Amino acid sequence: MNYGLILNILGSALVIVACFKIFPLFISIISRQSDFTILFISFLITLFSGALIYFLTRKYKNQELKKKEAFLTVTLTWLIVAFFGAIPFFLSGHFESFTDAYFESMSGFTTTGASILKDIEVLPLGILFWRSMIQWVGGMGIIVFALAILPMLGSGGMQLFKAEVPEISVEKLKPRIIDTAKALWFIYFFLTVLNIAFLFIGGMDIYNSICHAFTTLATGGFSTKNLSLGHFENPFIHYITAVFMFLAGVNYALYFWIYRLRFSSVFKNSELKFYISTILIVATLIAVNIFNIYPSYEEVFRHAFFQTVSIVTTTGFSSTDFGKWHVFSQIILVIAMIFGGMIGSTAGGIKQVRILLILKHAYREIYQLIHPRAVLTIRLDEKILDKETLGSIWGFIFLYIILCVVATLCLAASGIDFITSATSVISAVGNVGPALGQAGPAENYSFMPFVAKWVLILCMLAGRLEIYTVLILFVPEYWRK
Amino acid sequence: MNYGLILNILGSALVIVACFKIFPLFISIISRQSDFTILFISFLITLFSGALIYFLTRKYKNQELKKKEAFLTVTLTWLIVAFFGAIPFFLSGHFESFTDAYFESMSGFTTTGASILKDIEVLPLGILFWRSMIQWVGGMGIIVFALAILPMLGSGGMQLFKAEVPEISVEKLKPRIIDTAKALWFIYFFLTVLNIAFLFIGGMDIYNSICHAFTTLATGGFSTKNLSLGHFENPFIHYITAVFMFLAGVNYALYFWIYRLRFSSVFKNSELKFYISTILIVATLIAVNIFNIYPSYEEVFRHAFFQTVSIVTTTGFSSTDFGKWHVFSQIILVIAMIFGGMIGSTAGGIKQVRILLILKHAYREIYQLIHPRAVLTIRLDEKILDKETLGSIWGFIFLYIILCVVATLCLAASGIDFITSATSVISAVGNVGPALGQAGPAENYSFMPFVAKWVLILCMLAGRLEIYTVLILFVPEYWRK
Repeated sequence: MNYGLILNILGSALVIVACFKIFPLFISIISRQSDFTILFISFLITLFSGALIYFLTRKYKNQELKKKEAFLTVTLTWLIVAFFGAIPFFLSGHFESFTDAYFESMSGFTTTGASILKDIEVLPLGILFWRSMIQWVGGMGIIVFALAILPMLGSGGMQLFKAEVPEISVEKLKPRIIDTAKALWFIYFFLTVLNIAFLFIGGMDIYNSICHAFTTLATGGFSTKNLSLGHFENPFIHYITAVFMFLAGVNYALYFWIYRLRFSSVFKNSELKFYISTILIVATLIAVNIFNIYPSYEEVFRHAFFQTVSIVTTTGFSSTDFGKWHVFSQIILVIAMIFGGMIGSTAGGIKQVRILLILKHAYREIYQLIHPRAVLTIRLDEKILDKETLGSIWGFIFLYIILCVVATLCLAASGIDFITSATSVISAVGNVGPALGQAGPAENYSFMPFVAKWVLILCMLAGRLEIYTVLILFVPEYWRK
Repeated sequence: MNYGLILNILGSALVIVACFKIFPLFISIISRQSDFTILFISFLITLFSGALIYFLTRKYKNQELKKKEAFLTVTLTWLIVAFFGAIPFFLSGHFESFTDAYFESMSGFTTTGASILKDIEVLPLGILFWRSMIQWVGGMGIIVFALAILPMLGSGGMQLFKAEVPEISVEKLKPRIIDTAKALWFIYFFLTVLNIAFLFIGGMDIYNSICHAFTTLATGGFSTKNLSLGHFENPFIHYITAVFMFLAGVNYALYFWIYRLRFSSVFKNSELKFYISTILIVATLIAVNIFNIYPSYEEVFRHAFFQTVSIVTTTGFSSTDFGKWHVFSQIILVIAMIFGGMIGSTAGGIKQVRILLILKHAYREIYQLIHPRAVLTIRLDEKILDKETLGSIWGFIFLYIILCVVATLCLAASGIDFITSATSVISAVGNVGPALGQAGPAENYSFMPFVAKWVLILCMLAGRLEIYTVLILFVPEYWRK
């Protein structure tokens, strides 16, 4: 294990995080609130730590990272970045312990959106800006992780998407990642600006427009308001946010294709069709079920559609308190949380394409029983799926379930009721945010005992890094030799 | 589809059921209770219907059943046998509707043990004897289905066990099944007699000994008492029942081996080791968790052990009301319900060997990521698992989950709360019996709306026939040509 190189990469990551910490400083200056000192100290600590680590390990800089080392590097990056991201929260005094501040920060960088805060609106604007921004920064990290790093590591069936981003063609690891990253970030940035513009047109002030666009595009779900999107009464804002959440849940490879005018590839994409179908089916089922809760058709449609997109894309915004909906709709939402958005996006969950492929596989098994001699294959967009990839996908889903079960047991053992335990774990692993029961959309996670918070922190991290990346570090075989 | 032959088989099944209906008649005569007329009428209806169908289709008798037709035949057999099994219940007047009587009968023949009855002890002894006996008869059917029919159909990874029962060697379908069946039933009968003897020694009267041995060996779980095994205060009875539940959850192929003195094959059997480990781990976790609920160590140990074996083997007896245990223990029990007992036994659930194999597969996937060039295989008892079989197992588990999710949604839509909906579906598909919440071990299923009862009836049937057998009938492709 080349620890020098790993530390060098961590050092650069911290320097980047420090640079982002400049933006909330400006907000603090403009808003003339009390948080300038805190933000400035936190900026200095991060910059100094990052620069020091980078400087001490500079001789490893140009070495090549091995595939095996990538797992540890990525996991450590998220752990340490979340640590430095938590400093402003901790120093602000609005969090009771460092655990709480770290929970909020990890929830941010993993684009989960689960919050410890009982009252969001009392926080100074600079800190709140930082809280929204870490989701956006986390989203930047995830796009690169999902589209450039994971397919090379080949875990959880991601090898399927190796050739999907046209920019990936050269052999060397580093230039490949950097080139892909630049193109992906441009799309991400462009969509964010577009979202800000639309929210501003819809009547939101510029500060809130930026904060909400950050957390929408990252499918994060932190809001600057206690009632989340429910705070804004203009339906236009709900519709705009729903559309941008939908766009954020789409595989970024598709945007490449649109850029290259390959529209037919986009329209033929099976996962996109499945993603749209999932949203339509879920929203329709919910709309029928909550029909008598709201006074007008428009409201039924809006909340069913908004909440469906918010949960399928694992954003976690709420336009209304769905914790008060019928049990049927709540179960549907929990299933949607497990499905998640498209692969290669900032959305969490198992991902639409994996669900689509195992559905195809299950149907093939039945078909095979009816026609025992038929030789059947499973195809995705004209590509034949080999059995290794299918095995990887099953392995991934199984580990996903095991993680959820074990974590639920831990939460239950700490004294939390069954529904809250199970749904908050599913929500954390899927990087959604709100759960049901005591952790519903109108509640927060502050009531949970210390150990439960750390279990959820681990769940958010493992879910964000596609399970394998984190889990592999707990296998003794990984550390051998 | 050779409907003549299928009807002929159904006719013979009904004649067999009619023969079994003679036994409760004797009980009714001895106990001099009011149920003789009901049982006699029901006996005549069943015998007459069976004989008539058999007679009308006698010319199809010697034809060969095709594999594809076996799915329909098996499903229809359980549906129709349960119908005729429900007649005495319905005529007794202790059930509010035919739905209730059919629920109880299907719960019996599928060896589930979920009951509609609020007060079991008011039923006349003949009817109660029939209620216990249908589980035993259902168990006879399942052993043959699991060890002779399923491996030939090759669904859900059952092809693995094709060669396990040494009696299966000839080519023709019918003699093969009949030979295997005889040997298996002998073991089943022998264990039942042994169980009756031990219960009788433990101080239970002969009537209750027979009834409980019937439902123990079938891993069914119907009791003649409202408090289930909790009615009997002698700890010896609890221990004996736990031991026989354990034995009933073992693959019957292993008893063949013991009979042939091939003990080393038994001790080396991976599934047996995994089954024992599961029980030990689950019982230990529960014992630690319920430590402070009972006054003595013996009671903690006994209830933890009894309840674990009862749930892992999907019997569903209760020695105590585990609905009052901590959430942690309840979740553990729900997981155990999903695991189920060994394959080739009367136990339900996903089955231990499938869980073992997917655990091995998940570990292999992680190992492969660490050593990308290693060529790895998954072995079970020295046999290498091919990818087709592994695919079948994943397909099975996925359909199992889908069935549970869809059924839970149906129950929730009918107005039942989340925990009761989810656990009663898991319990029904796993053929366990008691669930949690409103359908806990101290409760019953009578409160459920009409539609929920029918959903659970379908769940019990599909779970019992390893999902595929029933689900395949809903695929249009099955009926084509």
